[in-house]
Amino acid sequence: MSIKLILTGGTIDKHYNESNGEMNFAETHMPELLKLGRNRADIELEQVMLLDSLEMTDADRQTILESCKNSSQDKIMITHGTDTIVKTALVLGNAKIDKTIVLLGAMIPFVFKHSDAVFNMGFALGAVQCLPQGVYVAMNGKVFDWDAVTKNREQGVFEAL
Amino acid sequence: MSIKLILTGGTIDKHYNESNGEMNFAETHMPELLKLGRNRADIELEQVMLLDSLEMTDADRQTILESCKNSSQDKIMITHGTDTIVKTALVLGNAKIDKTIVLLGAMIPFVFKHSDAVFNMGFALGAVQCLPQGVYVAMNGKVFDWDAVTKNREQGVFEAL
Amino acid sequence: MSIKLILTGGTIDKHYNESNGEMNFAETHMPELLKLGRNRADIELEQVMLLDSLEMTDADRQTILESCKNSSQDKIMITHGTDTIVKTALVLGNAKIDKTIVLLGAMIPFVFKHSDAVFNMGFALGAVQCLPQGVYVAMNGKVFDWDAVTKNREQGVFEAL
Amino acid sequence: MSIKLILTGGTIDKHYNESNGEMNFAETHMPELLKLGRNRADIELEQVMLLDSLEMTDADRQTILESCKNSSQDKIMITHGTDTIVKTALVLGNAKIDKTIVLLGAMIPFVFKHSDAVFNMGFALGAVQCLPQGVYVAMNGKVFDWDAVTKNREQGVFEAL
Repeated sequence: MSIKLILTGGTIDKHYNESNGEMNFAETHMPELLKLGRNRADIELEQVMLLDSLEMTDADRQTILESCKNSSQDKIMITHGTDTIVKTALVLGNAKIDKTIVLLGAMIPFVFKHSDAVFNMGFALGAVQCLPQGVYVAMNGKVFDWDAVTKNREQGVFEAL
Repeated sequence: MSIKLILTGGTIDKHYNESNGEMNFAETHMPELLKLGRNRADIELEQVMLLDSLEMTDADRQTILESCKNSSQDKIMITHGTDTIVKTALVLGNAKIDKTIVLLGAMIPFVFKHSDAVFNMGFALGAVQCLPQGVYVAMNGKVFDWDAVTKNREQGVFEAL
Repeated sequence: MSIKLILTGGTIDKHYNESNGEMNFAETHMPELLKLGRNRADIELEQVMLLDSLEMTDADRQTILESCKNSSQDKIMITHGTDTIVKTALVLGNAKIDKTIVLLGAMIPFVFKHSDAVFNMGFALGAVQCLPQGVYVAMNGKVFDWDAVTKNREQGVFEAL
Repeated sequence: MSIKLILTGGTIDKHYNESNGEMNFAETHMPELLKLGRNRADIELEQVMLLDSLEMTDADRQTILESCKNSSQDKIMITHGTDTIVKTALVLGNAKIDKTIVLLGAMIPFVFKHSDAVFNMGFALGAVQCLPQGVYVAMNGKVFDWDAVTKNREQGVFEAL
C-alpha cells in the first residue's frame, strides 16, 4: 500500500526564524518526523505549498484538490494549518473523490519540545490506512467526518458537530 | 467510542534508574504521552503488569487475554515489549475474541529524545479506531495481522510474513 | 555564595502562543531550566520585566541598573534579549558597580528542541561564580568584557571587538 | 584561549543500545552537545577512554593524568562518571599540575529528554575559563575543590566536605 502525503504547511511545519524571532516556513520537517517514528510505510511526499492556513485562498484549495485527484494513491494524508483545515475538508469532501483522505495538523509546531505533531502524524497515518473512502480530519486522537467537525478556538481543540 | 489501553510494560515504558544506571520500570509514562499528543479520545488505562517482554510468562499472557475478554470496550490497545509482542499476539489471535485489539511497542523508550514511542502510540490509536475486529501488531507505521508478522532482530524492524 | 538572577525577558524566555501562533512572554521558564540542570547553587530570582530587548527603553535599563545596585548579592546574572544585550552591558559597565555581573541570552528560546538556552545558562552560572568584579556578556561559550563585545547579526553570534 | 576537553566516558556520554536494551558506549555525544550550545570557544577534544567510572582502574587514572600533563592547553575539562569522579580528582589534585582542571559529569545521560548534561557542560566550560589553577569538580551548579567534595549517593548530588 502506497500513501501520498501532501504538505501544505500549517503550524505543524513552522520553524523558528532566528533572524527576526518569528515563526515561519523554511524546509519541511515531515521527513525528520517520519524518521523519528521509524516509519517504514511507503509514503510519497508532495509539497504543494507551505502556507499559514489563514492565508490559504480558494485557488490554493483547488490546487490541493487537484493533487488529490491526480495522486496515483488511494490513501492520502494532508498536513494543514488548523485554522482553516475544516474549510479545506469541506472542499475535498464535496468533490466526492473515491479515495481515503485524512487531513491533520498540530497546535504546537514539530520543533517545540511539547509539540503534538509526532502524535498527530502517527495517528493520521494509522487512520488513513484503515478508514474507508471518504474525507476526514484527524486531531486530538479522534477521527472526524469532513462535514461534522469544528475547531473550538477558545480551547484549541476539535469537536464533532 | 471508549478505548481500553492495557499496559504490560516493554521498552516503550522503561525509565532510567539513576541509582544504578540501568533501564527498568517505575511509573508508566503513557498518561504523559497522551497528554503531549493532546489526546481527547476516551481512553481507559489498565496497568496489568510492567514487564520486560523477555520475562513474560505464559501465565502473564493469559492474564492479558483475560483483561481483553473482561474489558467492557470493543477497542483495545496493548503496550508491549517488542521481543515477544508477536508471541502474545498469537495467544490473543487464537482466542478469537470479537474485539479489535492492537498491540504496540517502541524500539526506544519514551524518555529518550529520539524515541519512536509517541509516533507509535498515535499510530496505534488511529488504527484501533478504524480497524475491523481482529488482532494486530502496529509498528513502523504499518499494521500487521497477528498471524503474519515477525520481528527482524538484526534491523530492529517488523515485517510481514 | 548567593547569586541573584535578574530576569528581563529576551528570546531565552519566549514561549509559543497557541492562540495566535506568535512568540511572546508568559511565565518565565528559568526555574524549570535550573531544575533540569539539577542546580543546587543558591540562586534568588527577581523578575524585573519580561521584554523583547528591542522594546527595552533607557528607563528599563535604569531599572535593571537599580536592581543590580540594590541586590544584596555580589554575584548577578541577567537574562536578556540578544539584540540589545550589549547596550545594557554598556549602561551597567559604565556604572562601575563593585559586583560581578554576567548578562546572558539565547538565540533559540528554551521551549525549542534545539535551544541553546540550557547551555548558556549553565555557562553563565559557571562564569559568574569565578569571575572577578566587572560586567560581562556570556554567549557562545565565551566570556566577553562589557566594552569589547558585539553581536554579529548576520551570523547570529557574539564576537570580541 | 584554547581548552582541552578530555573524554573518559561516564553517564553523560552513555547511549541506549537498541539490540539489548542496555546503556553503554558508542560514539561520544559531546560534539553534538557543544553544537547545540552554539559553542565558539576553541575546544580540542581528546577521547582517552569511554568507560563507566566504576570500571576505571588506577592505570586509567594515570592515563588521564598523563593526558593533562601532556596537553598543550592550560585549561582542561574532563568528562567523567560521577561514581568515582572524586577519586580521579584526588589523583589529579595531588599531582600539583600548574593548570586549571575541571571535572564534570551528569546524573542523566545526554540522550534523555530530562538530562542535566547540557547544563553541566555549559557550567564547567564557564568555570574552567575563569578559575585559577587547580583541580575542581563542577556539578549541580557548584564548583568544588578537589579535596573537599563528596557524592551523596542517596540523593544523587555533590556536596562540599
